[in-house]
Amino acid sequence: MNGSIFPGMPAALARVVETLSGLPGIGPKTALRLSLSILRKPVVEVEQMAAALSDLHQAISFCDRCGCFAERGYCTICDNMRRSSGVVCIVEQPVDVLMLERGQGFSGYYHVLHGRLSPVDGMGAAQLNLSSLDQRVVGGAIKELILATSATVDGEATAHFIAHRYHDSEIRVSRIARGVPEGGELEYIDEYTLARAMDQRVAWPHL
Amino acid sequence: MNGSIFPGMPAALARVVETLSGLPGIGPKTALRLSLSILRKPVVEVEQMAAALSDLHQAISFCDRCGCFAERGYCTICDNMRRSSGVVCIVEQPVDVLMLERGQGFSGYYHVLHGRLSPVDGMGAAQLNLSSLDQRVVGGAIKELILATSATVDGEATAHFIAHRYHDSEIRVSRIARGVPEGGELEYIDEYTLARAMDQRVAWPHL
Repeated sequence: MNGSIFPGMPAALARVVETLSGLPGIGPKTALRLSLSILRKPVVEVEQMAAALSDLHQAISFCDRCGCFAERGYCTICDNMRRSSGVVCIVEQPVDVLMLERGQGFSGYYHVLHGRLSPVDGMGAAQLNLSSLDQRVVGGAIKELILATSATVDGEATAHFIAHRYHDSEIRVSRIARGVPEGGELEYIDEYTLARAMDQRVAWPHL
Repeated sequence: MNGSIFPGMPAALARVVETLSGLPGIGPKTALRLSLSILRKPVVEVEQMAAALSDLHQAISFCDRCGCFAERGYCTICDNMRRSSGVVCIVEQPVDVLMLERGQGFSGYYHVLHGRLSPVDGMGAAQLNLSSLDQRVVGGAIKELILATSATVDGEATAHFIAHRYHDSEIRVSRIARGVPEGGELEYIDEYTLARAMDQRVAWPHL
C-alpha cells in the first residue's frame, strides 16, 4: 500500500489507512481522512479505540437461548424476565435484533437463525439454528412466532419453510408487514412494493 | 450509548460502535455496520488494526525540514535526494502533500505551513511555519515557490502574504491553476469556478 496509493506516507500512518480500507464502504481516501482524524485525537482516546477493538472478539459470543449477541450465557433480552414470553420473533442475523429493538415496537423474545435458506450459498435447513427453536416450541410457552426474515426471495422461502414446520402445532405464525416505508414518497418506490402495499391495504383510520 | 441507540447491544460491541461513531462522517448506523464487519474478521486482523491504531501517535511526527508527516528526522520526500531542489511547493496541511503526491505531477520538495492566515481563528503569520521557510530560502537553492494553499479566501490571503514576503528575493513565485476539475461537467460547476476558468483560459492545443 505505501508507495502506491499515497506515496511518501509514513509506514505507521499507512498501516492505519490500510487496515481501515479493509472495512465495507471505506475506500483509501475515506480511510486517509479517518486516519488523520484519529491522529488529531488525544492519545488516550485512540488507546481506548484500540482496546475496544482488541477486546471485541473475546467478549462477544452468542446467546445460549436465542442466538443473538451476548457477552456470556444469555443475552440481555433473554435475561429480561419482564418481556412477553408468548411471542418470539424469528430473524436471520443478530444485527436484525438490534435493528428491531431500535424500533421499540416489540416486547417479546427473539430467535436468530444465523442465515436463511439459500441453495446457491449451500444454506439448507441443517445450517439454520432450528433445533433450539424446536426445543423452545416444545417448551409450550410460545403462542406466536413472528417471521421477520428479510423481504427477499430467500427470506420469503425461509419464512414459508418455518411456517410449514410448525403448521401442526397450536402456535400462531405471522409475518411482518411489507409496504411503503415511513416517509416514503410514492415517486421513489419500486412497483413491486407499491403493488404489495396496494394489495395488503388495511382499514383506515384504525378502529 | 448502550441502552439508548441500540438497546440490548453487548457492552463490548457498544464500545467499538461508540468509538467509531466519533470519527468524521460515521454515524451510529455506519459505526454498527463497521463494527459487525470487524467482528466477522479473523482475530489476527483485528489485533493488527488495534496495534496500528495504538502505534500511530508515537510513530508519527513532523519532518524537521518541511513540516510534513515523518516517522523521524526528515520525511521520505526530504530524504529523497533525486527530487528537484530548486522548486518548493507550499501547502497548508501535511495531508495536502499526500494528495499532491498522488497526482505524481511534481518532483520538487514541499513546505507545510500548518495552517493558513485566518484572523477569525486567531491564525496570524506568527502561527505559520514560516521561519523555517525563510531559512530554506536564505539557503539559496530555491528558484521557485509554488503556492498551493487552498482556493478559499483565507488560502488566497495566505498566498498573497507569502508572495509579498519573498517579493524582493530572486525567487519566482507561482500559484497552482484554478478552473474546472477533471471530469467536471459544466452543468454541475459553480459560476465562480466557471468565470475563473473562462478568465484564465489557455492556448490549446498546447504547443
